[in-house]
Amino acid sequence: MAAADARTAHRLRQNLSPLNILRYKLVKESTNMKTDVEIARAVKMRPIAEIAESIGIRADHLEPYGKYKAKIGRAALDAVKNNPDGKLILVTAINPTPAGEGKTTTSVGLADALHRRGKRTIVALREPSLGPCFGMKGGAAGGGYAQVVPMEDINLHFTGDFHAVTTAHNLLAALIDNHIQQGNALDLDVRRIVWKRVLDVNDRALRHIVLGLGGTAHGVPRESGFDITVASEMMAILCLADGISDMKRRLGCILIGYTRGGRPVCAEELGATGALALLFKDAVYPNLVQTIEGTPALIHGGPFANIAHGCSSVMATKYALKSADYVVTEAGFGADLGAEKFFDIKCRMAGLVPDAVVIVATVRALKMNGGVAKDELGTENLDALRRGAANLEKHIENIGKFGLPAVVAVNVFPTDTEAELALLEELCAALGAPAVRSEVWAEGGAGGLALADAVETALQKPVDFRTIYDTNRSIVEKIETIAREIYGADGVDFTPEAKKQLAEMERLGMTQTPVCMAKTQYSFSDDPALLGRPTGFRITVRELRASCGAGFVVALTGSVLTMPGLPKHPAAMDMDVDEDGVITGLF
Amino acid sequence: MAAADARTAHRLRQNLSPLNILRYKLVKESTNMKTDVEIARAVKMRPIAEIAESIGIRADHLEPYGKYKAKIGRAALDAVKNNPDGKLILVTAINPTPAGEGKTTTSVGLADALHRRGKRTIVALREPSLGPCFGMKGGAAGGGYAQVVPMEDINLHFTGDFHAVTTAHNLLAALIDNHIQQGNALDLDVRRIVWKRVLDVNDRALRHIVLGLGGTAHGVPRESGFDITVASEMMAILCLADGISDMKRRLGCILIGYTRGGRPVCAEELGATGALALLFKDAVYPNLVQTIEGTPALIHGGPFANIAHGCSSVMATKYALKSADYVVTEAGFGADLGAEKFFDIKCRMAGLVPDAVVIVATVRALKMNGGVAKDELGTENLDALRRGAANLEKHIENIGKFGLPAVVAVNVFPTDTEAELALLEELCAALGAPAVRSEVWAEGGAGGLALADAVETALQKPVDFRTIYDTNRSIVEKIETIAREIYGADGVDFTPEAKKQLAEMERLGMTQTPVCMAKTQYSFSDDPALLGRPTGFRITVRELRASCGAGFVVALTGSVLTMPGLPKHPAAMDMDVDEDGVITGLF
Repeated sequence: MAAADARTAHRLRQNLSPLNILRYKLVKESTNMKTDVEIARAVKMRPIAEIAESIGIRADHLEPYGKYKAKIGRAALDAVKNNPDGKLILVTAINPTPAGEGKTTTSVGLADALHRRGKRTIVALREPSLGPCFGMKGGAAGGGYAQVVPMEDINLHFTGDFHAVTTAHNLLAALIDNHIQQGNALDLDVRRIVWKRVLDVNDRALRHIVLGLGGTAHGVPRESGFDITVASEMMAILCLADGISDMKRRLGCILIGYTRGGRPVCAEELGATGALALLFKDAVYPNLVQTIEGTPALIHGGPFANIAHGCSSVMATKYALKSADYVVTEAGFGADLGAEKFFDIKCRMAGLVPDAVVIVATVRALKMNGGVAKDELGTENLDALRRGAANLEKHIENIGKFGLPAVVAVNVFPTDTEAELALLEELCAALGAPAVRSEVWAEGGAGGLALADAVETALQKPVDFRTIYDTNRSIVEKIETIAREIYGADGVDFTPEAKKQLAEMERLGMTQTPVCMAKTQYSFSDDPALLGRPTGFRITVRELRASCGAGFVVALTGSVLTMPGLPKHPAAMDMDVDEDGVITGLF
Repeated sequence: MAAADARTAHRLRQNLSPLNILRYKLVKESTNMKTDVEIARAVKMRPIAEIAESIGIRADHLEPYGKYKAKIGRAALDAVKNNPDGKLILVTAINPTPAGEGKTTTSVGLADALHRRGKRTIVALREPSLGPCFGMKGGAAGGGYAQVVPMEDINLHFTGDFHAVTTAHNLLAALIDNHIQQGNALDLDVRRIVWKRVLDVNDRALRHIVLGLGGTAHGVPRESGFDITVASEMMAILCLADGISDMKRRLGCILIGYTRGGRPVCAEELGATGALALLFKDAVYPNLVQTIEGTPALIHGGPFANIAHGCSSVMATKYALKSADYVVTEAGFGADLGAEKFFDIKCRMAGLVPDAVVIVATVRALKMNGGVAKDELGTENLDALRRGAANLEKHIENIGKFGLPAVVAVNVFPTDTEAELALLEELCAALGAPAVRSEVWAEGGAGGLALADAVETALQKPVDFRTIYDTNRSIVEKIETIAREIYGADGVDFTPEAKKQLAEMERLGMTQTPVCMAKTQYSFSDDPALLGRPTGFRITVRELRASCGAGFVVALTGSVLTMPGLPKHPAAMDMDVDEDGVITGLF
């Protein structure tokens, strides 16, 4: 595939709307350009046992799932537990524009580049969700020549972890309604059951339902609904648990609802913990695959980055640190949401100390942050870039507040001009964070060598990692700290409903936990339209939820949907597989 | 484990009510008797590649799922396609009593016995459903020393086939509601969407729901509901398809509902076929495991035996026939439902010719059919046995109508007296079907050698296999034939609703297909209380449904639930797994 073709593809992929997917396909047909799935399928993968061996895993400690995927079981985890830890590199991003900035692609490409430099490297990623794959996205396993493979399996059922979450989540829901039907010994208030159901499908019609209809034999009628599987608290638990015992403790603590007297009721009271854990007996262990270039990749867990903390599993990260010199991992959305929660929730709970941060940015997205309309992004505009770079500036400052060195990865697009790229480099240098051009989409690890070198330089810097708030402070204080320090807000307002829930949290004793912020990913503020580096704004918390099993309080700002819908032309309509297993339409 | 202990366990397992599970556990604790999961875990399994090799599958044609499970991919299927076929032995049963008669256990034990006799044997079974496993049953992979292993994996997520069905089924449902939400170009009548959603959970509260509530952004309100995954037409399709192309054709033909003008609309019109097939790209291939004694077992698909045909997949059966001298397979429920549909639907569609039939019976169940109450089954009662044996007699006659030889496997219980067993043998001999005692639960294959010998003798008999009806006849005639010939009914009545649907079927052109009878499994009639060999009854068809993708018309008699509920004390409440992966509570 010629670089020019890759660039054309890249250009078209910038705005991955259904229309553009269509356009992409048309161009593909006329130029014979390769799609992600075609690139991935053309790769000669190495047997997974070889990949495992390269990081010291014995073949008999591996549970293969086909020839190119495997779970790393308990024995392999035990075997490395006394090893020293490698370096932990977080890949995050500026506030994303609708097209996405390329965090996964950059993570994969950076890991490949470090691998090319002869470093023992593992990339630790989140599992993609099936729902969006059939909706807008059509796949999420990196892109171009910086992908994890087998991409079609990773994007579809993979090793079944998400299905385990779906099943366990819905078993708990069924146990709740069965308890009510069978006499309701716990005196559950059917108006205050907080545990919904989940499916890994984008299905807006299930957001709000009435169930238990049809008469006395078919349950007790009540309002409820479905979230997408990645929004399940059990997904967050899977990602935060550091073993089966810890997972069971967390599962038992899940708040399912309240009695008519107002007492909170947890999953353990239904006797559900053991069965739920049983459904996770395999899902709890990390999955090993490889990048196109043969770098080991651990892909495990995928909690929503708003309703949950949005990072891959603690067990995968810890295992990777014991098995590699460099671990590259990612966090969902922009650094204000993803990186903050990576540090304040995941690293805090798991005792992880990150060593460096890569912030992914694009000239196009920064210009958009500087006020340029979407269809004018192809034109050079240094003023807009300078204005929009304020967004990046704030993220760099924030990483510094966590005591970590930052490197900016500029995900280069064909429309970027040399003047724009040079200006961005100049601006970053002034902020103390080197900006490095990354071309991993078109060139794989070779396009990320400069980035790898900059990361290695950053890793020489002293690290004084700290979280941004103390969990002993009140919920209000913790939210205030995040809003002021990370978002740059003037303060936080709580709706009357949120204030009531604050009181409820106090009553539940859920005050000493981290706070999981749910906020739009498009802005530092809770208004998606406020791009750049907004000032003079306040954050409004409209709802607080206790994720007692995950171990955090979710603070919802703005409107956050936990079950996506399908677009007018779902990606599913363009997918196919033939008798030989050859797939089309999975991007 | 002493035989006496096994017998005690067997006795307790006769009525697997939650109370008895509890009693079983108590006895277990006091006598150190082993549960199924303990027996299964004590087995030293052979690596799945060795099992595969024993039936000629090359290691590189295998897709391993862990060390002891594998999918047999396209290459392995192609490699054997010109082999001659082995003998096909169907294991079916008398009308079951609530405890179950031991079809799966007998199938596994018979295969092990044939294997011990040095025959190349494969047992082809259905995958267990997760829902009932956490409800009443607590596992379904044979029992005692006649089990397939790893039983805990087979009973839980296995290789993900059922999760693929759940996902694909619900994706189609989401596409339907999305189509309506996005403008409803097909003019679908929201009151006449026949495609529901599914979950592999026993969840009665989801049987009848109203979805699409919450306002214009959240879909269009309408009535719907959930079935259990095994009741999905897609499960039937998975089991009847003989390759990806055939599966795609069937998926596209699924009837999803009607337009406001009354025109039937199929899945293909939503452009869904390719995406659905993509979700089945691995699920479509058979799963290989082993019995406790190392006999190869293909476990693939598990359609409901009432709303669907209740047999394991055509692809697994065909592959097994090409790879073994003897293939032992089972069909759901009693022979009036399971065997009839095995012959008239599965064998007819797939061009399979069975060679012999084993009818599983127990003295206890026959006495119950003879009018003995459940708590008096432990007392010798030759008269009741003689009366109840009329049930067995009719099944033997029926197998003869299909042109096949029958052997009766008497699943021996500790409460059976010698006089009862001798009487049963005498009665069967008079009916031309040898009765053989089977002790495979307590003794494995060694307890099934006499049965194996009797089956081998039966296989020498001439076979003149024929289906019971011609698909060219009208739906009414086909149902009449089954009711009169197989059930012994005087005739069939159609409710006014069913008559309207008959007219609809004619309009749909769904008249040349087989009929899939949905009827209580407890009686030849549609009244579960009419045990033995009832006469002078008529069958009432209350509803007809077109399973256009599966390729049959479902005729529902009596009340058939397609989503089970959980009992007062769900099996889930007694399950657990520890840090070492050791499982308890999965029977």
